[in-house]
Amino acid sequence: MKAFAKVRPEPGIVQIKADVPKLTSHEVLVKVKVTSVCGTDYHIYRWDDWARAHIKPPRIIGHEFAGEIVETAPDVTTHKCGDLVAAESHIACGRCYQCRTGNSHICEKLAIIGVDVDGSFADYVKIPEQNAWPIPSEVPPETASILEPLGNAVHAIFAADIGGTDVSIFGCGPVGLSAVALASVSGALSVTAIDINDYRLRLASRMGASKVINSRQRDPVAEIHKDTDGRGAGVVLEMSGNEAAIQDAFRAVRNGGTVILFGLPSGQVRLNMADDLIFKEAHVRGIVGREIFKTWYKVDALLNSGKVDLRPLITHRMSLGQMDDAMKLIASGECGKIVLTP
Amino acid sequence: MKAFAKVRPEPGIVQIKADVPKLTSHEVLVKVKVTSVCGTDYHIYRWDDWARAHIKPPRIIGHEFAGEIVETAPDVTTHKCGDLVAAESHIACGRCYQCRTGNSHICEKLAIIGVDVDGSFADYVKIPEQNAWPIPSEVPPETASILEPLGNAVHAIFAADIGGTDVSIFGCGPVGLSAVALASVSGALSVTAIDINDYRLRLASRMGASKVINSRQRDPVAEIHKDTDGRGAGVVLEMSGNEAAIQDAFRAVRNGGTVILFGLPSGQVRLNMADDLIFKEAHVRGIVGREIFKTWYKVDALLNSGKVDLRPLITHRMSLGQMDDAMKLIASGECGKIVLTP
Amino acid sequence: MKAFAKVRPEPGIVQIKADVPKLTSHEVLVKVKVTSVCGTDYHIYRWDDWARAHIKPPRIIGHEFAGEIVETAPDVTTHKCGDLVAAESHIACGRCYQCRTGNSHICEKLAIIGVDVDGSFADYVKIPEQNAWPIPSEVPPETASILEPLGNAVHAIFAADIGGTDVSIFGCGPVGLSAVALASVSGALSVTAIDINDYRLRLASRMGASKVINSRQRDPVAEIHKDTDGRGAGVVLEMSGNEAAIQDAFRAVRNGGTVILFGLPSGQVRLNMADDLIFKEAHVRGIVGREIFKTWYKVDALLNSGKVDLRPLITHRMSLGQMDDAMKLIASGECGKIVLTP
Amino acid sequence: MKAFAKVRPEPGIVQIKADVPKLTSHEVLVKVKVTSVCGTDYHIYRWDDWARAHIKPPRIIGHEFAGEIVETAPDVTTHKCGDLVAAESHIACGRCYQCRTGNSHICEKLAIIGVDVDGSFADYVKIPEQNAWPIPSEVPPETASILEPLGNAVHAIFAADIGGTDVSIFGCGPVGLSAVALASVSGALSVTAIDINDYRLRLASRMGASKVINSRQRDPVAEIHKDTDGRGAGVVLEMSGNEAAIQDAFRAVRNGGTVILFGLPSGQVRLNMADDLIFKEAHVRGIVGREIFKTWYKVDALLNSGKVDLRPLITHRMSLGQMDDAMKLIASGECGKIVLTP
Repeated sequence: MKAFAKVRPEPGIVQIKADVPKLTSHEVLVKVKVTSVCGTDYHIYRWDDWARAHIKPPRIIGHEFAGEIVETAPDVTTHKCGDLVAAESHIACGRCYQCRTGNSHICEKLAIIGVDVDGSFADYVKIPEQNAWPIPSEVPPETASILEPLGNAVHAIFAADIGGTDVSIFGCGPVGLSAVALASVSGALSVTAIDINDYRLRLASRMGASKVINSRQRDPVAEIHKDTDGRGAGVVLEMSGNEAAIQDAFRAVRNGGTVILFGLPSGQVRLNMADDLIFKEAHVRGIVGREIFKTWYKVDALLNSGKVDLRPLITHRMSLGQMDDAMKLIASGECGKIVLTP
Repeated sequence: MKAFAKVRPEPGIVQIKADVPKLTSHEVLVKVKVTSVCGTDYHIYRWDDWARAHIKPPRIIGHEFAGEIVETAPDVTTHKCGDLVAAESHIACGRCYQCRTGNSHICEKLAIIGVDVDGSFADYVKIPEQNAWPIPSEVPPETASILEPLGNAVHAIFAADIGGTDVSIFGCGPVGLSAVALASVSGALSVTAIDINDYRLRLASRMGASKVINSRQRDPVAEIHKDTDGRGAGVVLEMSGNEAAIQDAFRAVRNGGTVILFGLPSGQVRLNMADDLIFKEAHVRGIVGREIFKTWYKVDALLNSGKVDLRPLITHRMSLGQMDDAMKLIASGECGKIVLTP
Repeated sequence: MKAFAKVRPEPGIVQIKADVPKLTSHEVLVKVKVTSVCGTDYHIYRWDDWARAHIKPPRIIGHEFAGEIVETAPDVTTHKCGDLVAAESHIACGRCYQCRTGNSHICEKLAIIGVDVDGSFADYVKIPEQNAWPIPSEVPPETASILEPLGNAVHAIFAADIGGTDVSIFGCGPVGLSAVALASVSGALSVTAIDINDYRLRLASRMGASKVINSRQRDPVAEIHKDTDGRGAGVVLEMSGNEAAIQDAFRAVRNGGTVILFGLPSGQVRLNMADDLIFKEAHVRGIVGREIFKTWYKVDALLNSGKVDLRPLITHRMSLGQMDDAMKLIASGECGKIVLTP
Repeated sequence: MKAFAKVRPEPGIVQIKADVPKLTSHEVLVKVKVTSVCGTDYHIYRWDDWARAHIKPPRIIGHEFAGEIVETAPDVTTHKCGDLVAAESHIACGRCYQCRTGNSHICEKLAIIGVDVDGSFADYVKIPEQNAWPIPSEVPPETASILEPLGNAVHAIFAADIGGTDVSIFGCGPVGLSAVALASVSGALSVTAIDINDYRLRLASRMGASKVINSRQRDPVAEIHKDTDGRGAGVVLEMSGNEAAIQDAFRAVRNGGTVILFGLPSGQVRLNMADDLIFKEAHVRGIVGREIFKTWYKVDALLNSGKVDLRPLITHRMSLGQMDDAMKLIASGECGKIVLTP
């Protein structure tokens, strides 16, 4: 089959010919209909420090996708051939303390599709049956392919207590934009979106932001304080991973407020912890992945409710073969979500 | 001045002539512009068991109002004559355990305006300066007069974790209707409103309910389970005080879900506690009044955000002299909020 | 094999001869070393309304036990023959909303050992491998047999926020007594135990209660208010299931406090909901079973820490054949935990 | 009167002669019986960066004390001459968002005794009546003088959910030691204390630590993981303010665990946020001061319960005149709490 992989420890993701995956116990084989590109894939493409530390070539990349089940291992009981599914990309061990206490998304032995095992930038991908989430036939595959990153936003937004408070979101990549949309229909009084890219800020406005700030042009901390009677935002979501944005996030939050950290910084982050966290009695929470499957139920219900319109989020549709073009687009920041068809 | 009072221990609220209240330490005198009618006032009018136990005639009734400060005690520092204010109706002692731990709305020595001290169905009412909440001049007084009951709904809705869940609201009086409006813009996936009165259910639809059920015609418990894959609602708000509705509320909630109890039953309530609360591991919380002043900040912010449109809620505007007509309307259930002008 | 079962829909549990259970997928066979008697077993013995509604004879009774695995189904991977195990008595479906969101103890299709499937009052019992909890060899089997009810107490105690507050516990059966012991080493400022039986109150004192009240002799509500400056207890655990005790529990809790409901009332319970729950803004939570396996990890750790001494709890050791004597003892209330050896 | 003050912007605290403070509205004058030395006082003595930024000489230092009220302003209603009191050192404005939502300890316009206004290293100190906390006559003044720092520990410990979990505490100054004592009687399964000073670690053992680690000799992160099956501590309290300790705190916490930050670092802190906070989904909370007055009620109750023995904490008793000796002792780390008598 056709696949895109990191074949050597160097920049790039190249097309290869690979065997269709062979199933073992409790696995299903998925024919990929749509796979979308995540910031993580771009880290791997660039071959930055994070990628070097986590990827052992050869590895087929890609972890956001939707497709049809075309084969099931003999002991699979929860899905059957012909089912349309999206995938939870975190494969949990099922036996550790975290897995057995309802937190399998932070499993002590977590494996991630497209990072630790072969992924979805391919004609076929195999996954454990428990990682397949059924998709109703009326949901378009491209929408199904972005439920995984939408799940990140759902997990992040509902981890904070945003009802009746002012929310600021630093970073308007696809997850940040999804968070903007969710916050604006989930009781936030105002949603301020911050980025350095006007293209993304225009998307943020379309997704429901009540105000956007280009932090290259204006100081977001000063603006947020001005807009909140000098108090600061009740909840700040940091979804960029940029050190300066993280520092601003802590300066923008009000005393007793909450900072949700989702964006992954590439190195160490310096923080004025005394003034910006301790004296403020800030609540801080790291967010990774999705609660399995609490988040998926909410994602499902959101789709059914029609409350959130994800269509503006998908800005580019390409073929899987246009991998390099897709990566260039991400580098430019002039895109929302890019979906690929094998 | 003109006032409406319970003058004898019997049904009715009658017009009297009273002295303008004399201020003592830290009090302000408010010229009432608009005062609205609460279900509690109707309890007092009817002279039911609750009223008999709580009201010592003579007492001027009324506790939801907005007006202008026209006099201040010499030691008042936080307000001045000419200020437009709404009022927190709970007067807290300031010294008990609850007051000193951030819960003055459940003060151990709570006094309520229009119940324990003279109220706002009058030309003037005096209140402690700390109970006056400033209102911007652009807010219409009739809107300001219903911030107190809107605060009940804000307190109730944000006490539960409604983000991404299905919400059912039993009882569509003004607070229930406000809760419908709030829930629908605060992340609830669906908002089902239940009442026995079609007039109020039509209002519920206008306030944002995704579904309405007349419980005289259909079984709300069966409907709610049908609409949630047999699971039950994640959050149920009981805002009627009716015993059958309370029982339904517990039967309608899903395992592990939350029941918010706000409506006040007049007598003992029978509950199948084993099946409907314990085996379900339901979370239950009583809600009374408003968090002072956390709720008021949120009410303020909601008004500013324009997210909630309270206009459909006010269905009748009358003069204070039409007290009996107002009470008849409430008895009929064919009204939302009734506001009165002295 | 020898077993004790409900064979007809009438009072009593009688000895029968039964086949050793045959294993199906993912099951293990446990040779019972010690099995202890739960209040539920006594309900079944008496054949009360609850039992009639839930037990379909013939059924082998018993669900608290420890034993050795003597056979495993071919697909079992997490345990092996020779392992000493205790058992989680709740068998979850693994597929419903509750199971997939970390709440399998309130599974929508829950089956309970000794109630819905054959139990442990027998030489052998079979259980799903996921319900077997490994026990270190140094733990005595009689201790292991009561980890399941200790787990109830752990779940109940840590569901409330008892740190730095006054705790009252109504009902001093084995779970109530375990809760007394746990609360007294877990930050409660005082632990008041209430029962109608002096034998059990003496046990409560030995388990760490700072005060005991025989509610036949003194009014627990008055005593608790007297001991808390008139405020009421911060946390009340109701572990008797008695209607009067439940009503007292709500009257004893302070404004804003928490009532944990664990004891199962046999019929409807009448509550003065307005005064005792809503005006108080009480937090109420039903507790059933144990969090799987969060509670078990805590039980394990408690045992290892040596903080809680369970020995006073086991007051009687009998053979399985003395079933009738054990039931008479429970009826008398003159016992703590009774453990039985096959 | 005699007082010790920072008189010039340079190291040292020197004895001066000062006027007895004159009372204004709602203030009381306290004759100091015992005042104890805080790490903050040492910062001021050394004249480090923090002190330079916050202290405007001349300023009388000291904020932990107990004494007798000897004069009251005419409008004081809650205390009278002769009352023994301890003091909440945070003076809140009473009007800001934080003050009006139950969080006056993080008031937006906070003033601190001995930092922003004159303090207790003197014969007399004046405070607002609302900052005086009554002390029963049977409590020794030296105990009363350390309720303020004990309150820090109470606030920190009960901000985390330590029931049934493993707790690690970095930094064994007086607040860290108090936290050790509290955690060990509040449901923690184990309490590991970490410091670089053996004197303080011996105190930690006496206060109830189940294990102590000198981080100059052994790696605390490795030890904590070894002691928790490789999982990490459920709750970590950072009470040193040292950058390396803060980094260790984040490395020592388990996935999904909680880090409480109390110790104040003097400059920026570098953190490996991706691995040590985000991927772990750590919960982090800054803690400053005490909840006013929730914490004080708990402190009171703890004293009454006799659960915590504070006596080992007070290691040195000196006269106020021995200020320099006291500061040298603190610099050496060879002390617990030092109490001073004017």
